[in-house]
Amino acid sequence: MQVQLADKYGFCFGVKRAIKIAEKTKNGITYGALIHNPKEIKRLKDDFGIDLSEDIDAIQSDREVIIRTHGIQKHEKEELLRRGISFQDATCPFVIKPQEIAAKMSEKGYSVVIFGDGKHPEIKGVKSYADKGDVYVVANCEELETLKLGKKVALISQTTKQIEEYSKVAKALLLKAYELRVFNTICNATFDNQDAARELSTKADIMIIVGGLNSANTRQLLLISQENCKDSYLIEDASMLDTAWFAGKRLCGISAGASTPTWVIEEVKRKIEGI
Amino acid sequence: MQVQLADKYGFCFGVKRAIKIAEKTKNGITYGALIHNPKEIKRLKDDFGIDLSEDIDAIQSDREVIIRTHGIQKHEKEELLRRGISFQDATCPFVIKPQEIAAKMSEKGYSVVIFGDGKHPEIKGVKSYADKGDVYVVANCEELETLKLGKKVALISQTTKQIEEYSKVAKALLLKAYELRVFNTICNATFDNQDAARELSTKADIMIIVGGLNSANTRQLLLISQENCKDSYLIEDASMLDTAWFAGKRLCGISAGASTPTWVIEEVKRKIEGI
Repeated sequence: MQVQLADKYGFCFGVKRAIKIAEKTKNGITYGALIHNPKEIKRLKDDFGIDLSEDIDAIQSDREVIIRTHGIQKHEKEELLRRGISFQDATCPFVIKPQEIAAKMSEKGYSVVIFGDGKHPEIKGVKSYADKGDVYVVANCEELETLKLGKKVALISQTTKQIEEYSKVAKALLLKAYELRVFNTICNATFDNQDAARELSTKADIMIIVGGLNSANTRQLLLISQENCKDSYLIEDASMLDTAWFAGKRLCGISAGASTPTWVIEEVKRKIEGI
Repeated sequence: MQVQLADKYGFCFGVKRAIKIAEKTKNGITYGALIHNPKEIKRLKDDFGIDLSEDIDAIQSDREVIIRTHGIQKHEKEELLRRGISFQDATCPFVIKPQEIAAKMSEKGYSVVIFGDGKHPEIKGVKSYADKGDVYVVANCEELETLKLGKKVALISQTTKQIEEYSKVAKALLLKAYELRVFNTICNATFDNQDAARELSTKADIMIIVGGLNSANTRQLLLISQENCKDSYLIEDASMLDTAWFAGKRLCGISAGASTPTWVIEEVKRKIEGI
């Protein structure tokens, strides 16, 4: 099977930075998954003793905490400080930015609308900073309809959203607000990976997206890929490949989410080349 | 011929206010047409001695000047003040608002983009207030492409534009800016007249739009009307009606621009009813 990697794929700046921080914080503990990739989480556990806790209250105060790339909620950070727990902040700078915008806009009296997945840790975190007024998370334009907004509205996007979808939300909101302040908080790395996946998917017969099943940016890559190539599959690692998918195909395109380690991608690539 | 007036049409708040100001300023002089309706301008001349000058420098300093509803440029107002010329400001409050926004955003370092007609006095005026940085007037999305914008962009609309067109410009700009601050400066009266004309045009066999040929909001009404009713005509007064237009038609809808006097509309209505 002929294989081609997308021009841009895999680890972004924020993930590389977080892994570096984790590797330097031996035997530390992350509150929530550092990045959305179980393979890499396991490697950090095996090689650097990095533990993972989903319960902030259960973290012992003598442990060095690493804050996940997606960030945590404002009151959780305050809780760490209150308990005197030392922490390394691996929140991606591109996530800190929307947190700061949410805080500032809320402070200035804007209704804050966040386009994203309300259950995603990044969005829970960003939302928590808009604590001076009304704040809403919407997944699509339809959800805007019932909102009771002020005259001044600030709009923020989850970093991993598609700009086209975001601009649709902005357009719909414009009809409801006197002033709409739209911040393009979509991450460039996300853009670049998306653009490259889009391009490759137009010529590939089959597309394999490698990444965590719970990774928002990886799922976006799958959606984009499916627009041009209906035979697009999301896998976490080479073991999830099914040779039946490749019957009658000539070119297999590969892309990978921003939290997918290179070694996982290489393994997938080798296995497909052998089909 | 059966005739139906749109639910909302004709004089808006700003025009009514300007006419009141003019009627109280007997023998005054307007710099540029007070409103875009020659019929009403003539009435103000005949009944109240209101003159019209297109040249600010030619205005004698003992004349009481009336500033037109569309506003004038910042340097022109400064010129009146400098020459000690007394003036009544009939600039529509809904036009003063975008002037203020342009000034504030320019002051705060935003690139200012104005969606509108660069030759229209309203837009010349609004643009003149964005004098601290870069400012552009665009008539459509295509014209955005060549602009050299900063990271922070403020978008303002001519008061008479359609919101759907405006939101397309906002959407296109969003792809070019980190922060886009969109102000919905489209006038409600314009909205209301547009909505009512749209509704009526879906059931009318012929639509007559009454208003000044140089009036932006009147031309918008014509465009909206033509979307649903291809037999839509723009006239300034009853003398422009052509009975041939009405052959085989049952229902004639009538709308009128924000600067069209009621007496002109009534004349048109009576004449069509007699066809």
